[in-house]
Amino acid sequence: MPKVLISRHLGADAMALIAENTFQIVIWPEDRTADRAWLLENASGCQGILVTLNDKVDEELLSKAGPSLKAVSTMSVGYEHVRIQELASRSIKLGYTPDVLTDAVADVAIMLALMAARNAAYGLSIVQSGGWPNVGWAPFGFCGPQLGPGPTTKSFTAGFLGFGRISQATLRRLIPFGVTHAVYTDSGRGRRTEDEDTAFVEQYAAFGQLKQLKWVSLDELAAESDVVFLLAPGGESTRHIISTPFLQKMKKTAILVNPGRGTLVDSDALADALDKGWLYAAGLDVIEGEPNVTTEHPLVKSPRATVLPHIGSATTETRAAMADLAARNLVAGVLGEPLPVEYMMH
Amino acid sequence: MPKVLISRHLGADAMALIAENTFQIVIWPEDRTADRAWLLENASGCQGILVTLNDKVDEELLSKAGPSLKAVSTMSVGYEHVRIQELASRSIKLGYTPDVLTDAVADVAIMLALMAARNAAYGLSIVQSGGWPNVGWAPFGFCGPQLGPGPTTKSFTAGFLGFGRISQATLRRLIPFGVTHAVYTDSGRGRRTEDEDTAFVEQYAAFGQLKQLKWVSLDELAAESDVVFLLAPGGESTRHIISTPFLQKMKKTAILVNPGRGTLVDSDALADALDKGWLYAAGLDVIEGEPNVTTEHPLVKSPRATVLPHIGSATTETRAAMADLAARNLVAGVLGEPLPVEYMMH
Repeated sequence: MPKVLISRHLGADAMALIAENTFQIVIWPEDRTADRAWLLENASGCQGILVTLNDKVDEELLSKAGPSLKAVSTMSVGYEHVRIQELASRSIKLGYTPDVLTDAVADVAIMLALMAARNAAYGLSIVQSGGWPNVGWAPFGFCGPQLGPGPTTKSFTAGFLGFGRISQATLRRLIPFGVTHAVYTDSGRGRRTEDEDTAFVEQYAAFGQLKQLKWVSLDELAAESDVVFLLAPGGESTRHIISTPFLQKMKKTAILVNPGRGTLVDSDALADALDKGWLYAAGLDVIEGEPNVTTEHPLVKSPRATVLPHIGSATTETRAAMADLAARNLVAGVLGEPLPVEYMMH
Repeated sequence: MPKVLISRHLGADAMALIAENTFQIVIWPEDRTADRAWLLENASGCQGILVTLNDKVDEELLSKAGPSLKAVSTMSVGYEHVRIQELASRSIKLGYTPDVLTDAVADVAIMLALMAARNAAYGLSIVQSGGWPNVGWAPFGFCGPQLGPGPTTKSFTAGFLGFGRISQATLRRLIPFGVTHAVYTDSGRGRRTEDEDTAFVEQYAAFGQLKQLKWVSLDELAAESDVVFLLAPGGESTRHIISTPFLQKMKKTAILVNPGRGTLVDSDALADALDKGWLYAAGLDVIEGEPNVTTEHPLVKSPRATVLPHIGSATTETRAAMADLAARNLVAGVLGEPLPVEYMMH
């Protein structure tokens, strides 16, 4: 009977999908991240392992599992916690859960851009601390930049580091806000063609004012954008791509939004840039080193940073769909069937 | 030389527009709401009065001003602080500032819907209190309903109490979120035709999944909507239109958003409904009795209410445009010229 190791209970529906099979199921019993030692202890002889992004899948865990291991399934779109090369060299398949979370993350991207621009956290704190009666309504109270051209300006540029599914969903949401130009830079797997960019603009021409979508350099991305969304993959090649040289080139009224990977941003450099007023504000759903982010973290202390605890995909429907897909990836991997959504290694 | 009374400094640009004229300008000198006694004292003999929504324009103030008064200009889209009938009976014109704030308020409507659904205030508080390391990432942590169909459901209905400019701008923004149906009820000045509703749907058909826009009863609005935006005028005729009978009929997963007028909602009934779970959450930019809303207010105490201090139009560009328009309305009114934007009394 194939043994599967599951690092977290993923809800009754997803667990039932796995239990339908004649597997020996070993599941971490507590409602918190599995202890590393427990995972290592229980990995031996597994044919499948299901993890969340809290769990490191590295040489040590794979060695403990041994040659029986056929598939790893992660309930996440990110795979920075998984050593891809170690899996590839052992011919272990990797299942993951992109696509189903695209809308939920794009929604949070828009929410964070608005919250950062419109000083939402400050507004909430004024109300919660009983300050509203004293602050009242003032002609320029709480004012920040508008996420769009505003009543008197003519253009608004949205910028994207990475232009995959979530970036495209985010840009579509911004069109009725009045975005006129969109720029992106992408060092990913393939370069989009200019024809694809033109087709995107033409598709939505009747709906808003988007005139242009184009690839730019990283420096141009910094200089031209009124809002920048970071939606590139993590890992060493993109680590701290957003640091002082980028931040210095931004517009003083611009908003930086990171709904992607914490490692993309040099936290100290961003806190310093916000303090110096190089950009207006930042909205962050992820921070390097999370969840070990305390009240001493410079971005938690910054009044111009809006920090959320990685809730991008956190809608009931989306997480249920992710759990479902992670369960089906695990089952298929163990049974030797094609994975519903497999990460293709190069 | 015509005398004008100004209840608040509206920024250098708007003030310069007024100062270009040979007026005697009397302006409240402090950076807070003008004292009522000061306004009454200084109103005598005015030809124009410029106010914000903090200032009551009633029989007492108009009598103090006397028969010289030609125009009142308010830097707001709302006019509940102005006794329209008193102005009408004295043939005093009213200038106001709609349109220029449509986008800024629609932006906040979307932001509040997202913040309420996605538990943003709770997320912020976890990070700010240093709780992130303990909470970590959990499969269903912070989960709320999705502002759209989600990966597995087929439909999402946006509802509107009032379907004027701001509602329409809000609905346009929701289309890329995947809204499939939109319903509204409107007891306003004129009823939209079914042809107008069909034309709206057809205009945006290529951009999203919106299939239908239609007028419904208040009960149907409550029962059918996954999110309800309150964007109707205030005043006695709509006071507490959102109370227990409406709230009881809502979906348990629905979001209520009030970016409009505080008086539309019975605060005690809403706090009770949230406590009982009749709806999922509420996002409020306005509350009856604001800004006198303290930490003892039931909606400030409710963990399911997201309360912001009336920042709907608070972008630098929008408030500057409102101040500009308010200044031009005042000047035109005093000079006997047509007001750039006049409130048409019936």
